[in-house]
Amino acid sequence: MKELSDYIREINDFPKEGIQFKDITTLLQDPKGTELCLNTLLELLDGEKIDKVVGMESRGFFFGTLLAQKLNAGFVPVRKKGKLPYTTINEVYALEYGTDTIEIHIDAIKKGERVLIHDDVLATGGTAKATCKLIERLGGEIVQCNFIMKLDFLNGEEKLSGYNVKSALSY
Amino acid sequence: MKELSDYIREINDFPKEGIQFKDITTLLQDPKGTELCLNTLLELLDGEKIDKVVGMESRGFFFGTLLAQKLNAGFVPVRKKGKLPYTTINEVYALEYGTDTIEIHIDAIKKGERVLIHDDVLATGGTAKATCKLIERLGGEIVQCNFIMKLDFLNGEEKLSGYNVKSALSY
Repeated sequence: MKELSDYIREINDFPKEGIQFKDITTLLQDPKGTELCLNTLLELLDGEKIDKVVGMESRGFFFGTLLAQKLNAGFVPVRKKGKLPYTTINEVYALEYGTDTIEIHIDAIKKGERVLIHDDVLATGGTAKATCKLIERLGGEIVQCNFIMKLDFLNGEEKLSGYNVKSALSY
Repeated sequence: MKELSDYIREINDFPKEGIQFKDITTLLQDPKGTELCLNTLLELLDGEKIDKVVGMESRGFFFGTLLAQKLNAGFVPVRKKGKLPYTTINEVYALEYGTDTIEIHIDAIKKGERVLIHDDVLATGGTAKATCKLIERLGGEIVQCNFIMKLDFLNGEEKLSGYNVKSALSY
């Protein structure tokens, strides 16, 4: 039987030289792979009740919407600056060179709502940490941050210390 | 009972003055709205067998992945230039000012596969037409192009003549 990691394609030197990119499109294009990944992510949540799933632009949208549907929760996109049409709040976070800004609609999370944060990959944790801040500013309670995979050598989990961080795969 | 259109928020002057933007984040953040939209899109398909659902970056990813899962089909993202990590083919299409380029992985569709194209909005039809070309170049058969809504005054359906175009809502 194929394991989850068998559905992920490794691509050398993308987006730049020396980086080995984990491509989840091979997972998405196989309904068996998608089902396996979705069930694995749900198991990591261990039955916790969730009101909103927050997915990060844009690879967090794929399993974010699927998780929300299975959990009977709402789905909320966190997007790069300027993409969301309604009133937003934003967080600026550091990149290797420079900064980036992400936004969330101000009415996307209600005070006290239980939130699952999802993205495909946990790398340095910069985007995930900024997303946690956005949700807490709106009064949401972060139940878990879950990822298809984490890249251990980038120490993203350290940046998210204090949060319940889970990942289906580790590299 | 709320209708599908009740879940969509209208926002004036986004992304620029004079445009009334249809915001589907209010639909996504309500699981009842999401369920209603998904079922409506499935009804438009009328039981046709589908091998791959192709969703356009990035608002086509939301219901694209959900549709694929319900249809037991694979999901394939079409993305802006430079975002897909593996070997791609691309199409250039005209915008109001200038051009844009979209890409698909060369192994995303196999010859003879039955394809459902999905995006949130049919506007001028430029992106959808370019997506049709990509799929046909890979040997896929386009069963339907479906949208949450179409903006009739932009005549997108004319640009897609010859294809089976369906939309849950019209404005």
